[in-house]
Amino acid sequence: MRVIYNEELKAVADALEHMAEGVCTAMHGAGKALLDQDMEAAKSVIDGDETIDALERQILDQCVKLLAQQSPVATDLRAVVASLRLASTIERMGDLAQHIAQTAYRCSPNSALSDDAKTREIFESMRQLLDITADRLPGMLADRDATLAQQIIADDNKLDELHQQTFALVLNDSWKGTKQQLIDVVLTARFMERLGDHAVSTARQVVYIVSGFDPSKEPKDMD
Amino acid sequence: MRVIYNEELKAVADALEHMAEGVCTAMHGAGKALLDQDMEAAKSVIDGDETIDALERQILDQCVKLLAQQSPVATDLRAVVASLRLASTIERMGDLAQHIAQTAYRCSPNSALSDDAKTREIFESMRQLLDITADRLPGMLADRDATLAQQIIADDNKLDELHQQTFALVLNDSWKGTKQQLIDVVLTARFMERLGDHAVSTARQVVYIVSGFDPSKEPKDMD
Repeated sequence: MRVIYNEELKAVADALEHMAEGVCTAMHGAGKALLDQDMEAAKSVIDGDETIDALERQILDQCVKLLAQQSPVATDLRAVVASLRLASTIERMGDLAQHIAQTAYRCSPNSALSDDAKTREIFESMRQLLDITADRLPGMLADRDATLAQQIIADDNKLDELHQQTFALVLNDSWKGTKQQLIDVVLTARFMERLGDHAVSTARQVVYIVSGFDPSKEPKDMD
Repeated sequence: MRVIYNEELKAVADALEHMAEGVCTAMHGAGKALLDQDMEAAKSVIDGDETIDALERQILDQCVKLLAQQSPVATDLRAVVASLRLASTIERMGDLAQHIAQTAYRCSPNSALSDDAKTREIFESMRQLLDITADRLPGMLADRDATLAQQIIADDNKLDELHQQTFALVLNDSWKGTKQQLIDVVLTARFMERLGDHAVSTARQVVYIVSGFDPSKEPKDMD
């Protein structure tokens, strides 16, 4: 159910939803690049980031214009302030998806990850969680859906646990990857964990719009 | 030279400057924790992050109130919008300084870095650049000093170069650190590089307030 009537506010909401759809696609693409070695997907994530960046700039302009011309209050004001913050966060999510795709692209035709089953298993689980989160993003924003927001927040703990497992994995003597693979595993896992944190941040912004509850604190990442 | 007359805008600017001073101290403390193994400094950065977080929430509230009650336009409106974005960025810088301090604390009484001279040398250079940037932050914000902003932006290239050198360093066969040290070097260098990126982002916000030039794009990190 849409809850916005003002034309300009609707234009901001549409642009944000457009950004969220772009990042949803980029997150799926990053997973395909990393785990299916799909270089078409990698290329498309890398090239597509400019569109997401341009939308952030557009939203900043739209919000400043809206604040100057309409002096919104209450929920509308919170929506504009949250949109400014959401645009930054979603832009950053695009960057992180791009980093993952770039890592996969650099290592191609080899995998960026070491070959062992356990490494693949952990990253496959992280990818599945992020794919689910990615699919929730556009609808959560379009409908200001606090239930979807809560689901995104709740799922982030599982992602954090998997992220911690990557450290235990590579530190174990049985892990036989190269130094480059160790670097790629550590950084890629961090990019994925940060994607989850930023998704939580977007979810908190939606809670803020709906309830006025202060969402300013980004989730702590625990590294 | 101060350029703000409105009381509420001044209160936001003061809170931001206070945040910037907190992060300046935290960045120095992180360097001391990492390279001088100063655990007093580490503890103080870790414990001090809450104050920075609380200031972010305060600034968000102040800005929303200011927008609702005063409907600022032109430079004042840009200052409020930039303050919202600056508060998020500076809060994140506090988190990154905290991560570095936590890494040092976890490894204490050993160094988080491997013992070799080359590793120390690169991190010492990164620390020096970040100390200089940290010292520029509060003044840049207090005076909306575009010259300091440009210096912060220009120095970030050197930090990025040093960050790239850390990869070459640890990948070289002559580098003999443990896997844990490899992880700590890679992640700590990334935290430092991100601190520099966020500092550039704050500098661009200052340019935006002063000139209206669009600073929305955070600097690309190239990993």
